[in-house]
Amino acid sequence: MLGNLSPQVQSTVINRLENRPKLIAMDTMNFWMDIALDDLKETLKQIDVLIINDEEARQLSGEYSLVRASRIIRDMGPKYLVIKKGEHGALLFHGDNIFSAPALPLEEVFDPTGAGDSFAGGFISYLAKTDDTSFDNMKRAVIYGSAMASFCVEKFGTERLVGLTDVEIQDRVRQFISLSSVDIRLTQ
Amino acid sequence: MLGNLSPQVQSTVINRLENRPKLIAMDTMNFWMDIALDDLKETLKQIDVLIINDEEARQLSGEYSLVRASRIIRDMGPKYLVIKKGEHGALLFHGDNIFSAPALPLEEVFDPTGAGDSFAGGFISYLAKTDDTSFDNMKRAVIYGSAMASFCVEKFGTERLVGLTDVEIQDRVRQFISLSSVDIRLTQ
Repeated sequence: MLGNLSPQVQSTVINRLENRPKLIAMDTMNFWMDIALDDLKETLKQIDVLIINDEEARQLSGEYSLVRASRIIRDMGPKYLVIKKGEHGALLFHGDNIFSAPALPLEEVFDPTGAGDSFAGGFISYLAKTDDTSFDNMKRAVIYGSAMASFCVEKFGTERLVGLTDVEIQDRVRQFISLSSVDIRLTQ
Repeated sequence: MLGNLSPQVQSTVINRLENRPKLIAMDTMNFWMDIALDDLKETLKQIDVLIINDEEARQLSGEYSLVRASRIIRDMGPKYLVIKKGEHGALLFHGDNIFSAPALPLEEVFDPTGAGDSFAGGFISYLAKTDDTSFDNMKRAVIYGSAMASFCVEKFGTERLVGLTDVEIQDRVRQFISLSSVDIRLTQ
């Protein structure tokens, strides 16, 4: 998981690894698109999953429609793309598959700082722990990432994340699942 | 289903009915909040489901958080509240339950005019057809409403809706379900 540093540093890290990991995920931001777009495009060729927000997806692709943007960005390298939409949840793209994860509707957002990093941490650590990079498992990872982000914004800094218990995390994941679960029987 | 007319007209319609229907749903907009708020508040006391968008929910309640807004609005009368969020889907509130329906990520929005009305039509006709006003069935109605709205925006006016087949509708509903379906096994 490459944190949001200069694309050149990210690329150097990859090149110095003796063995390429099974999966390389990466965060980046508008700043690098503004000042180091060519480097960023080179680094994108080396990775599997890109995690960015909706504005960044639009800037990087030059397309407003996130469906079109996702195709253009995945043509740059990463086979998987996660687009974070803040209070509107997140989208995961792979091939023709799209997964839409809800955000937990909150009473109050105390401090949104770090939500994106918490998402990335929850996402990649779930994949690392389960050692399964299938699309189905990546959907679960998006839910775990969303759950960690929802904790992050409840207090300042890392206050809410420090000392979180497994039970609290599982309860939150359960809330996410029930939030978008619907049982429809189709006749055709 | 009371369309978006003056709250006084909506109220008159209700009062003239010999028998109160099992369920009364209603649409309204910022315009009536601006010029006829007192009438609107009176009408809200008479209905079961209010269908509005996120900006209108914030204006009507004076709260930015949709969770808080939903509580304030439901204290005004309607036990159920649907908040439409355009390209970000819709939320359904009842008691302590929240359902979050995704929007279909689209290649292109040809013309968004009528999306909200298509949503309301799909929502209420699903409830009328199934004659079941439980929360679980209302979640399904939100999905059907979302599906109809997603068709509406694909062409001008009612062009795409006229002549829609059952198979097309069911295929679209299936897309909505697969969009947010995730299978997580929790250990605790």
